[in-house]
Amino acid sequence: MSKLLVVGTVAFDAIETPFGKTDKILGGAATYIGLSASHFGVDSGIVSVVGGDFPADYLHMLNDKNINTDGVEVVKEGKTFFWSGKYHNDMNTRDTLATELNVLEHFKPVVPDNYKNSDIVMLGNLHPLVQASVLDQMTVKPKLAVLDTMNFWMDIALDDLLDVIKRVDVITINDEEARQLSGEYSLVNAAKKIHEMGPKYVVIKKGEHGALLFNDGKMFYAPALPLAEVFDPTGAGDTFAGGFAGYLAKTEDLSFDNLKNAVIYGSNLASFCVEKFGTERMQELTADEVKERLDQFKELTQYSIK
Amino acid sequence: MSKLLVVGTVAFDAIETPFGKTDKILGGAATYIGLSASHFGVDSGIVSVVGGDFPADYLHMLNDKNINTDGVEVVKEGKTFFWSGKYHNDMNTRDTLATELNVLEHFKPVVPDNYKNSDIVMLGNLHPLVQASVLDQMTVKPKLAVLDTMNFWMDIALDDLLDVIKRVDVITINDEEARQLSGEYSLVNAAKKIHEMGPKYVVIKKGEHGALLFNDGKMFYAPALPLAEVFDPTGAGDTFAGGFAGYLAKTEDLSFDNLKNAVIYGSNLASFCVEKFGTERMQELTADEVKERLDQFKELTQYSIK
Repeated sequence: MSKLLVVGTVAFDAIETPFGKTDKILGGAATYIGLSASHFGVDSGIVSVVGGDFPADYLHMLNDKNINTDGVEVVKEGKTFFWSGKYHNDMNTRDTLATELNVLEHFKPVVPDNYKNSDIVMLGNLHPLVQASVLDQMTVKPKLAVLDTMNFWMDIALDDLLDVIKRVDVITINDEEARQLSGEYSLVNAAKKIHEMGPKYVVIKKGEHGALLFNDGKMFYAPALPLAEVFDPTGAGDTFAGGFAGYLAKTEDLSFDNLKNAVIYGSNLASFCVEKFGTERMQELTADEVKERLDQFKELTQYSIK
Repeated sequence: MSKLLVVGTVAFDAIETPFGKTDKILGGAATYIGLSASHFGVDSGIVSVVGGDFPADYLHMLNDKNINTDGVEVVKEGKTFFWSGKYHNDMNTRDTLATELNVLEHFKPVVPDNYKNSDIVMLGNLHPLVQASVLDQMTVKPKLAVLDTMNFWMDIALDDLLDVIKRVDVITINDEEARQLSGEYSLVNAAKKIHEMGPKYVVIKKGEHGALLFNDGKMFYAPALPLAEVFDPTGAGDTFAGGFAGYLAKTEDLSFDNLKNAVIYGSNLASFCVEKFGTERMQELTADEVKERLDQFKELTQYSIK
């Protein structure tokens, strides 16, 4: 069992979808990644920052799931990062209503000593310099560094982003971002160019259309499970990344064949995330449900042509 | 080996994509369906209509591929159906530049006697009354009737369309059309409603995002092969349908498990269709290429989670 280090936001979200709206609820990339990875029973630690307004109960909930939060700095006089968004009817597009960086603005991540030798590092979406600073603090080179990012950093900090991309083994990115980063429309060509930037593996997330894994000319496709109702897509990408990293931490097999399994598990867990608002579904999710859904994924994808 | 009857347009297309443009070239749903199905060596016949301007060489090319064209009426004094379109840079959207119905306007399909007992009937996109008229002429109820249609008929002939949908076993339809026909955004719910309209199997085509097969609560997903370059998407949906119907005609197994294989073959053949303009790629396609691509599909989709 490998040790997993997660860096990313721990936040408040206020979400509006065609199905309803929430007040400030628990959110943040590291929260979703941590909850998703926790299903594999791995020893994981989160590095993040919150304000004095962040309920201790939320941290306890994470601790109860065996997620170490020693690396979550609490800035007593500060306020927690807040994001608010409204999804359109198609659930694929959204408007950001508010982004209050608060304590995130001056966040200097500090990796706890006992996570400086983590085997797998999952760098959630944050300023690329913050992501790089986490890699700098590792005393042992991780077996696998996974980076998630978004178009925002391509717009305002591209050089820093390219520097940290060089240093990771896997990048997870959505289709539009892959196109922006590479300047290529075809995802096959985009993945090729992103490979050349450093990462051995490129995972392109296509939301309801699934995810593609690329490695040195090889391709694998994990569908998203078609659902009767998508309640709230918030956190689905992070949940996917958490399932991916958590499965690899558990199995300790970094072959392409096992990375295939990891994206299937990422898709599996993400399919639950969207069933309720925020982290609600992920908090209550059981191992039996994940196992049952794996069977659904097999039915959805497996065939035997004679 | 089952007998396959195909009804649909045989046409001239003029196509413009970011990669170039063509003059009037061979096109039409039945052409693409027939060429695709011909890879399974089935006995197939096309019912369609062309004008006196249609080169006999095109019909001979189809005959050389073992596609019977006795049911293709030639209206000497008429002109062949003509469609012209221009694809946008994303290759997923297009503008229709011209639609000249010509001989199609008064088309009364006549099924040749020796195809009136076909085991599988593939009703390509046409006016629903024309599709229904083909079913009316069958002397033996087909083992499988497959219907393709489009939003145009939902707009102008919905009642006729619903009547013929009631009579078929499989409907193939794209995602937007499934939403329009059912009034449901979720494809899972859309498929459920379309089931209730008659077809036991619902195939929802999602272009570059693959295709979903639904049957009585069961789902199967066939991805599209990610390609470095899509040259011309014209006919990809019909090629998919032709591969689907052709594989079923060859294997004579109408179980859900074999329909899974049929959508994989549909996706396989469609992935070739888009590699060149018009029917060019499908005309030159070899059995070895199809077999090799099947291996690519397996690599793309198959995994074994321990």
